[in-house]
This record gives sequence, C-alpha cells and structure tokens, in this order.
Amino acid sequence: MISFECDYNNGAHPQVLQKLIDTNSEISLTYGFDRWSQKAREKIRAACECPNADVYFLQGGTQANAVVIDSLIRSFEGVVCAETAHINVHEAGAVEAAGHRVIALESNEGKLNADVLERYMQVYLHDESREHVPQPGMVYITFPTEMGTLYTAQEIEAVYDICRRHALPLFIDGARLGYGLAASPDITLPWLAQHCDAFYIGGTKCGALCGEAVVFTNRQVATPRGFFSNVKRHGALSAKGRLAGVQFDALFTINSESKQLLYLELSRHAIDMATRLKEVLSDAGFPFYIDSPTNQQFVIIPNDLVTRLKKDVDFTIWQPYDNRSMLCRFVTSWATTDDDINYLRGILHRTIE
Amino acid sequence: MISFECDYNNGAHPQVLQKLIDTNSEISLTYGFDRWSQKAREKIRAACECPNADVYFLQGGTQANAVVIDSLIRSFEGVVCAETAHINVHEAGAVEAAGHRVIALESNEGKLNADVLERYMQVYLHDESREHVPQPGMVYITFPTEMGTLYTAQEIEAVYDICRRHALPLFIDGARLGYGLAASPDITLPWLAQHCDAFYIGGTKCGALCGEAVVFTNRQVATPRGFFSNVKRHGALSAKGRLAGVQFDALFTINSESKQLLYLELSRHAIDMATRLKEVLSDAGFPFYIDSPTNQQFVIIPNDLVTRLKKDVDFTIWQPYDNRSMLCRFVTSWATTDDDINYLRGILHRTIE
Amino acid sequence: MISFECDYNNGAHPQVLQKLIDTNSEISLTYGFDRWSQKAREKIRAACECPNADVYFLQGGTQANAVVIDSLIRSFEGVVCAETAHINVHEAGAVEAAGHRVIALESNEGKLNADVLERYMQVYLHDESREHVPQPGMVYITFPTEMGTLYTAQEIEAVYDICRRHALPLFIDGARLGYGLAASPDITLPWLAQHCDAFYIGGTKCGALCGEAVVFTNRQVATPRGFFSNVKRHGALSAKGRLAGVQFDALFTINSESKQLLYLELSRHAIDMATRLKEVLSDAGFPFYIDSPTNQQFVIIPNDLVTRLKKDVDFTIWQPYDNRSMLCRFVTSWATTDDDINYLRGILHRTIE
Amino acid sequence: MISFECDYNNGAHPQVLQKLIDTNSEISLTYGFDRWSQKAREKIRAACECPNADVYFLQGGTQANAVVIDSLIRSFEGVVCAETAHINVHEAGAVEAAGHRVIALESNEGKLNADVLERYMQVYLHDESREHVPQPGMVYITFPTEMGTLYTAQEIEAVYDICRRHALPLFIDGARLGYGLAASPDITLPWLAQHCDAFYIGGTKCGALCGEAVVFTNRQVATPRGFFSNVKRHGALSAKGRLAGVQFDALFTINSESKQLLYLELSRHAIDMATRLKEVLSDAGFPFYIDSPTNQQFVIIPNDLVTRLKKDVDFTIWQPYDNRSMLCRFVTSWATTDDDINYLRGILHRTIE
Repeated sequence: MISFECDYNNGAHPQVLQKLIDTNSEISLTYGFDRWSQKAREKIRAACECPNADVYFLQGGTQANAVVIDSLIRSFEGVVCAETAHINVHEAGAVEAAGHRVIALESNEGKLNADVLERYMQVYLHDESREHVPQPGMVYITFPTEMGTLYTAQEIEAVYDICRRHALPLFIDGARLGYGLAASPDITLPWLAQHCDAFYIGGTKCGALCGEAVVFTNRQVATPRGFFSNVKRHGALSAKGRLAGVQFDALFTINSESKQLLYLELSRHAIDMATRLKEVLSDAGFPFYIDSPTNQQFVIIPNDLVTRLKKDVDFTIWQPYDNRSMLCRFVTSWATTDDDINYLRGILHRTIE
Repeated sequence: MISFECDYNNGAHPQVLQKLIDTNSEISLTYGFDRWSQKAREKIRAACECPNADVYFLQGGTQANAVVIDSLIRSFEGVVCAETAHINVHEAGAVEAAGHRVIALESNEGKLNADVLERYMQVYLHDESREHVPQPGMVYITFPTEMGTLYTAQEIEAVYDICRRHALPLFIDGARLGYGLAASPDITLPWLAQHCDAFYIGGTKCGALCGEAVVFTNRQVATPRGFFSNVKRHGALSAKGRLAGVQFDALFTINSESKQLLYLELSRHAIDMATRLKEVLSDAGFPFYIDSPTNQQFVIIPNDLVTRLKKDVDFTIWQPYDNRSMLCRFVTSWATTDDDINYLRGILHRTIE
Repeated sequence: MISFECDYNNGAHPQVLQKLIDTNSEISLTYGFDRWSQKAREKIRAACECPNADVYFLQGGTQANAVVIDSLIRSFEGVVCAETAHINVHEAGAVEAAGHRVIALESNEGKLNADVLERYMQVYLHDESREHVPQPGMVYITFPTEMGTLYTAQEIEAVYDICRRHALPLFIDGARLGYGLAASPDITLPWLAQHCDAFYIGGTKCGALCGEAVVFTNRQVATPRGFFSNVKRHGALSAKGRLAGVQFDALFTINSESKQLLYLELSRHAIDMATRLKEVLSDAGFPFYIDSPTNQQFVIIPNDLVTRLKKDVDFTIWQPYDNRSMLCRFVTSWATTDDDINYLRGILHRTIE
Repeated sequence: MISFECDYNNGAHPQVLQKLIDTNSEISLTYGFDRWSQKAREKIRAACECPNADVYFLQGGTQANAVVIDSLIRSFEGVVCAETAHINVHEAGAVEAAGHRVIALESNEGKLNADVLERYMQVYLHDESREHVPQPGMVYITFPTEMGTLYTAQEIEAVYDICRRHALPLFIDGARLGYGLAASPDITLPWLAQHCDAFYIGGTKCGALCGEAVVFTNRQVATPRGFFSNVKRHGALSAKGRLAGVQFDALFTINSESKQLLYLELSRHAIDMATRLKEVLSDAGFPFYIDSPTNQQFVIIPNDLVTRLKKDVDFTIWQPYDNRSMLCRFVTSWATTDDDINYLRGILHRTIE
C-alpha cells in the first residue's frame, strides 16, 4: 500500500529529526526564547532578505491564520479572500470564532484575481449603506492555492497594489509555501517578503512534525502590537517553543554541497515527484481537473476504477464529479520516492488493462 | 417633498403614541416585568394561538437576530440562510461577533428554497471532511424577504420539514412581519407559529418607535436556557422594558369596530397603499425588478429620471442596474397616505412628460 | 404604595414626552442622521464646551459600555475597573462577550483610587510574565458610582494622569451622570469632558424613556475608527435614531427661565429629594452603610421592619447585612415628589412606633 | 549552570523520543486517527479504568483549557475557579476570548475550597438580580495547583458533590497531573476519573515535547457534541496528530520491570528529586512560602542572595516578598538528576557561607 493522500501523513525529514535528537538533552529557555528559535529566526530573516522581519513560530495552519488575522484587524473588520480559501472552507469557522467575517469573493482556479478584489472594493466604497455591511479589514491569499495553482509574480503584485491603495494589509497563507516556491518560475522567498505584510512558512506539510513560521515583513503595516500576548490568548503559544525552533533551524540550514536551504531542497524533490506523477496520471488517461504545477494533482477517475485503485493506493476522493466519476486528489511530498511513482504506474497499468 | 424611502422614518402610530402618553406617569416594574409587557405577551400568545410560547421584547432587528441565533446554537455552529439574508448583508457582522459563521446559500428571489437547503445538507453530510467545515446549527429565513417577496405556506412547510429532519431549529426574521401577513394569501400568525421554532414580530417598521417581539414557539426545541441572561449579556435588555411592552400592547389590541389587531390593520393599510403604488409605478412605465406583493417595490429607472425625481420624492437607489439606469426601491408603510400616492402620480406625470 | 426602588421605573419627563408628541408626524432621516439627533449633538457639544467631541446615541447602559470598550481596545486587551463596577458585577458578562477581560481592582467605596491603579500598573509592568497575563488596555470608572458615591475633581484628575502616563484611554460610565453633576461640588460637564477620553450621558435613568449619549472627547485618543459600524455590529444601532435624538434634544434644551439645561434641572430636583430622603431615613434611626451625596441611599434595616415596610413602600433589598438586618437601597429620581418623601416619613413613623 | 526554573525547558524523555524515531518513517492517518493515537487512547482508558472515556490530544495547556471550557458551557456562561487558577492569571484572557467570564473565588493555598464554592452558589442563587450577573456554568480546579499544593481525595469529593448538586460540570486541569498523582497519598488516575467530568493529562511538563490528553469521563455530562469541530475551530487540531499519539503511547506504556506506566515512573522520579530539593532548601535556611508536596517549591530568599545564586542556578523570581527578599520558585522534573541537587547543595553552601 502506498499513499498519495496528503503531505502530512509522514514523520519529519531525517535531518529535522536528527536535530531534535541532537538537542534533546539541552536545557533551554521557554516560549520561543531558546537559542534554536533565535537562530531559526535569523536564518529565516536572511533567507527572506528581510532584516526587519519579525518571526513567530506557531503550531498549525488554521491556528496561524486565526491569530494573524485577529491581530491585523479590528474587532468589527473582516478578511477578504477567494471563496475556495482554506479559511473559508476548511477551518470550522476559526476566523468567526474571533468575531470576524470571512468575506469570500469569486475564485479563479483557487486564486483571488486583482480585478475581482478591486470590483468588490468599488462596490463597497460606493455602497450607501457601506457602514452597515461587514467591513473589509485585510486580504488573505494562499500560495500555492488549495487547488494546487500558483499566482504569478505579476498577479500578486496586482493584488498587493490594490491592497495598498485601500490600506488593507495582505497576508499570504503558505501552508505549502515550499512547494509553491519550488514550482514557481518567478517567485522567490525574498520577492514574496517584499510583496505582502505577513505570510507564514508552512513546516507541518514541508518536513517538520509541526510548526509554522509567521513572518511580519513590516512593510505597509507594522507587526501588530501585543502579538505575543494574542498568540498566548489564542492558546497558540508553545511552552517548549524549542520544538518549532529546532525544526525550523534544520529546515533553514543551507546544505553545504547543494548550497540550498533544506526547506527548498525537499520541496524541490516533491515537485520533481509531482512532475513524474502527472505523467503517470496522464498516461493512465485521467483528465486533469485543473492544471496544477505544484504537489497536489486533481484528476477525474471513473467510479469503478476508484474502487479498484483504493485497494492498493491511498488518495483522496475530493468530491463527486458527475454520476460516473469522482474528482480525486493525489499529493506528493518531500517523502515521496521514485519507487512510489513506479509502483503507482504499475498498479494503474494492471488495473486499467 | 414626500418619502417612499423606508418604513422606519416616521414616528409611532397615533394609538401607540397615545398609550405611551396615557401610561407615562405610572410606576412600573423594570426589565420587562411590568404589567404592560405581561399583557402584551398574553395578547401575542393569544394572537399566535400558541399558549406555550415565550415572548421577549428586544430593541431592534439586528439585535434580535444576533441574540436569538447566539442562544439557539452552540459556539461552534453557524446559521444557514439565503445569501440575500439581512444577517448576511446588512448587519455589519453581528452574527460573527458572537463567534458564528453565516452560511449563505443560493437565494431565489430573496428566498431560501427547500431543495437548495436539502442539497446543501446532503453535500455537508457526505463530505468526508465535514467536521472541518463550519457546522450548520440552525436555519434563518425572512418573512417577507429583503426583496419584498413572500414564501408560500407550502414553501415554509418544505423548509421546516427539512429543518426537522436534520434537527435544525428554524428562526423567522419578521422585521416586516405585519406587511407579510397582510399580503400573504395563506399564512396567518397562528400558522407561522406552528411552522418554526422562533420568530420575531417587527415593531420598529410596523407602528412602534422601537421594539421587536421575539417568540419562541417551543415546538422542535425549547426556549433556550438562560435566554434572559444572554439578552442582558448582548446589551439588549431594556431597563425600562415598559417602553416596548406598552407599544406592543397597543399594537396587539383588537379594534372594537374592525375586530382586527391594530398591528394587522395598519399593515393592511400599507399593503393597500403598495398596491396603488405599484399601479402608479407601472403606469410610469418602470419595469419591476421583482414581483413583490408587499410594501417594498423595486423598479428600474433611467439615470436622468432618477436625478429629476429625487428633487421631489425620497426613495432609495438600491444599486446601479446597468449603465443607463438604477435599481430603485419605493416603500410604503402604515403612515403612507392616499395623498402621498396621488402626489407621486402627479410628479411622475410631470417629470416624464 | 410609593416607590424608591430605582430611577428607571417611570416614564419620560413631561417635556421629553411632549417633544416626542410634537415631532411624531415628522418624516426624518434614519440611523441617527435626523435633524433632532444633529441638534442634540450640537447642544451636547455646547454643554460640554467640547466642539470637537463626537456624539453617538445608544439605547442602554450595558450596551454603551460594551460597544465603547470593544471599540477602544484591541481584541487581546482588557478593561481595568473597580471590583464594584457595573461592568464587573451586573452586565452578565457583556465585556467578555466581545472577548475582553474585566480586570477588577480593589474598590474604595465604589471608587477606583489612583494609587490602586498605579500599584496595579507597577506590578503589571514589573511582572516578568506580563505578556502572559490579560493586558490592560483602558480604564473604566463610574460617575456617580454604583454605591452612590462621587469622585472629587482631584481624584479623577489623579486617575486620568495615570491613564495618560500609561497611554490608557479613560472611559466614564455616566448612567446617572446628571445626578452626579447635580451633587458634585466641583465637577461640571465641561470639566468632565476635559478629563477623560470618552463618557456617556445617561438618559434612561435621568428623564428619557431610553437612550444614552456616548461622547468621545478626542483628547488622548481619537474617536475609534469604524465606531458606527461597530455599533451596528453590536446590534446597538437604532433604525429610528430620532427616538434618542428627540429626547436628548429636549433634555439638553436650556430652560428660558432658570437658564439651566433640563437635564441638570431635573437631576438637581432628584438630589434635593435625596437630601430630604436622607433626613427621613436618619430620623428613623437607620444607620447609613455609606455616605452617599447622590440619589442612591444605602441604609441598614432590621429584618422584621423590612417586612413591614415592604407593604407600603417599594425599595431594594441589596443584600443581607447580618443575621438580623438587611442592606437596603432607596433611590430618588427626577420624578420623586415632596409628597413621596412625606408619605415615607409617615409610614416610617407609624411602622417604627 | 543548572536549572530549576521550570519543568518544560528540556526535551522529551528518552523513551518518548525513541518512539518518535522508531515511527518516523511510517505513513499514518491524520488528525488523530492514526494507530498510535488510537493505541494511546486505549492505554489511557485502561489506566483510568474508564472504558467509556473519550480521549482527545491537544497541543498545550492554555489551549486545552480554552477548548474544553468553551465546549462544556453555553455562550453566556462562565467558569468558576480559585483566583490563583491558571485560567485566571496566566492565560492572557483565553477564556474571555471565547466569550466567557472567569469567575474567580477566594483561593486557599491555591485550592478552591468546597465551602467557598457552596457559599458563592448560595449568594448567586439568592441574588435577586442573579440573571444580570455572569452565570456560573462549570467549575475548574487544578491538580496539582499552581502553588504546588494538592487537593486531598476528600476535598475533591466535596467539590464534586457541590458541582453535581448544582449541575455544574467539573473540569480538572492536569498540566502537571503526573507529579500530582506521584505525590498524592490517596488520589489515583482511576479515582480522579470517577470524580470529575473532564480532565487533562499534561504531557508537555511530564516527558513529552508537546501534547495534552483531554479525557471526558462521561459521568455527570456527556462528551460535548461537536467537540472535534470545536477543537478545529480553536486552531487546536494537529494535522499530524501522530505526534501526540506516539508520545502518549510511549508515556502510557507499562515498564515490564517496574510494572508501572512510564508517565508515573518519571513523575515519581521528579517527586523524589523534589523531596531532596526541599531538604537542601531547608538546610540553607530559606523559609518555605507554602508547604508543597509536589515538584514546585516556593521559598523566600534575601535579595542579595538571589543575585548571587542567579549566577550559578536558574530559578524563578515569582514576585517580591518584602523589601528585603524575594519569593522564588524551584522546580524539579523527570529530567532532574541527583547531580543537579548535589550541585545546588554545593552552590548554596558556598554562597551562604
């Protein structure tokens, strides 16, 4: 049995685990003041070429989104996003739990288009009852998106321009940031850090056991006052902050041979595996639901084939596509191997014949 | 200058005002325990033919919605409604302020269709990640709707059937309930009280200075435990509860001649005026945006005509309709007079010629 | 039966009611944009000698407190007050409903002493885990206090000095502001408006049917951005804003003979009645629990006497004092008459003999 | 430099770490459905002798408290506790963030006495304005307390009796549960599980890198409906649930030699070390602030000695005790060694001489 079900069903990358082993007997400061968290912050700032950035380590993606959003806006403001956004569909109402509306706009292949955003803002600004509607306080996008797609540099630039014109902070959810950076032709970590006010670097899905690094770029707006206390108030402050610090230190260490961050190296591997996966799925004749350059692939598979494949391969039935077929998701990760892909090719070959 | 702008830009109905004058010097119990509030509750229970109903007086519609919704569901649950619902579009995020998601479904002329609701529930129940999405906890509809349309008895019955099948309380926002009852061919107050778990009887828009009567029917679910305290906690408890009590007592008094409740009598008048208004607007050649049987009428008017009319008549520009015309709303109320309609007819005649 | 139970068990002052009658047939703008609300705002600004003040009308005290507090602080901040403060003891958790801690400090006869506040701030600032405790975001005091006592000008000055030193906005709950001003030897409305960032002028307890005027003085901090929307979001925006506007216009009209605001005139009357009440209670031999110069008087009455008095007079049993007696509250208001006091004197005479 | 600063400044217990290493390459189900989480739940149910218990793994203590409390009570209810309770003093307002009041009562050496609780309930129930005050919805105690003290079995029994009489769920915060069980003469895990409705087993402070096991005993009240979704909504659901599952499986494995759970074994060690620590602190002549049988010891140390000791030993300055001395906290953990204690004895000897 092999699995393409998701990118968070494995342990830690071996180098990350090794560092946890190596540092286990150290006594350290708590709540993120330990030396590994400090080192990791320095490495992240360097990798982002953003020396003024403030970096905080949280435990998971929904949590990171909720705390950052609640900290960037006032109680009566909401967060604008595409209707496919994770905060809109799969966070059980975490944004509302802090009192804020999720203002979901039309999604274009998982992305929030700049013109959709601007049109919404114009309608809002010209609405005579605009003080009676939920107030837009910031904008949220995901990179890569929940559909595996990627914004181009130009697209993010266009969104950020509109954000700045309307004084709305831009926050980028990077739960799978590594996979996005590895697949993008034009977006790098430093570029990203120049085109938003906050983002997070996903660890859980990219090599760590847990942990997300929230980065405030201090561009349009400053790191929210009292952010640390608000993290605590959201139950998101790790007593043993070292757990995230050690892992991110490992992930943001530059490999002496490849001269690359481990984080990008392992992400690159997942994208290479995804490229091979696409080939295999395409060879099997499955239509692609969307053209995804990243580690999540969405294909349409006839119902009976889904049943037979499920015996040998784990993947996700996303939703019914039509009466005869299912929309299915296959995901690679840093842990996917050539053998996994070859095995899948074999299974598909045998099952379809 | 005459006004068809809305149904809450006037004072109280003369009989309501008179009762406030007559009772002004009385010393009374506070927080809704006064004798007028008690009498008004009795009269409402009688008018609803629902002796087990619990009745509470609140101050406004957004407030009534927020408190009732927050009381009927658990912290992690949301409220399902049509996307045109007042709680979704014009309450500045009041539901979210209490931590709950507004789950907005496709709207059909302002109404939530039973099949739309059932389809949503089926998708929800069959979603393998359903515990990760905002949880449906209750259903909210408006009668009449924000577009002036009315559910038929059959339509509400179908919605309530689905609610009961899924154990979801049904709450009906009756900000303009009187106008809906006066215009409906088949829905009466007792019928309504048999087909939902809670509703409110709008006073502010139907003859009172302020005040909405929340009715819990104790059908599918009981009046929420601690509701009184939750009203207080939402800042919605009137110290001088008599203000609402006296007004609702007047509104629910039966006119000795007509044998009708004042509330329904004055609503009936507004509907009669709306019928005449429709004629006048139709004669002026304005296309109707939607077929509304109630006191809100939506018509499409060319831009230049809008400008000229605005000099003599108050009405609401709802939103741009196309490049050359506007969607406009004209509203009657218990206070609209035949003279108002005649005057409008005259203005339209002169302006269009 | 006469009543000294509270100052909100009567109707409106006759002049306030008359203005409601006189304006009842007017068509007006909604949501507080009507001409009476505008006039009332002007009159309040003039009475406060604070031309830059922003004035909003809300419906009740708990609501005013909750909305103002939620607007002045960030989500993770709390409000500092005396433990006897209304927000701490009698608002059913309305401040917490918006996500904020009530930080209750030692009370000195109902007042928050400056040195108690400063000591708390010093402990907070020197606490090494201060980012883990609820964060102080503003200070709340009541004038007069819940115990009927009054801050001196010097006491408020001392509190406000500390607030400014620590950049904490000061908000004064004036549910009974008129009675406080009428009884204070040194605090006037203009003085008060110079010594805090926000306060509200209680209408419900001082002559109106409902309504509180929230005043932002724009001193240390500006009127909170988006306040109007947050009022709406809290369900606190009156559709017929004129109801409060008309009443406050009446209350803040200067009597042509006495050259006094009606608001202060009727408050003065309540204080005169309270002075006579004190005499009567004192003559009856009841010990005073606290020395109150305002319209609330707290005395200790033997249990059996309480039972007998209750047959003829309404007053509040505040709490058991000891095994043999009760702490009782007697309240005068603008509506208390000399006859009421004389009647009470007679009753006490007969009952005690 | 040795450290007695806290019990969460080290890594994982070696056996816990080893299990993380051993299972690292496994592919597993996510969100807590993995086999290790399932095994750990079984082991916890067995250790608690509570086969009907429901067990959930969360990431930290403040989070566990906030989610459990928000799930056990209705929006308008608060949680009753001792004023020294962690939720009251060191969680940055996390309970209020979910809309609930922390109702803090007098603390007796860190404990909530049954008679204090009953007295509060009697005052509440006899308060005529009880519907206007924050409503008690549940009771929270800590075992051991924040001061290191322990409830006796009789004391918890008395508290739980009162809880049941008033239908209030009892929740026990076990951030340091292991240390409490190891030090208690009469309370075992099965006993505890019979005397409350929910509790959590602290992992972070007792051998794990992170993780707390929330146990619902299904006694007085059932596991809250929708708890899983509420965990997600609070940002408290781990994508890689295996991280906690693997660790708790290790902690709740019975040592084949000692026939003891690792969790209790390592806790026992910390208590042994605490006993030696007390001796050393006592020999140094430091007065104890409180008599603590657990792993937290509070002593009073002259200011100059604090300064000198701090050069060689890490411990916490809790708060100033008087002008000349500090209240200091020394903590042992599963990782404390005999050498640490000996070293401290040496330092104290040299420093005091």
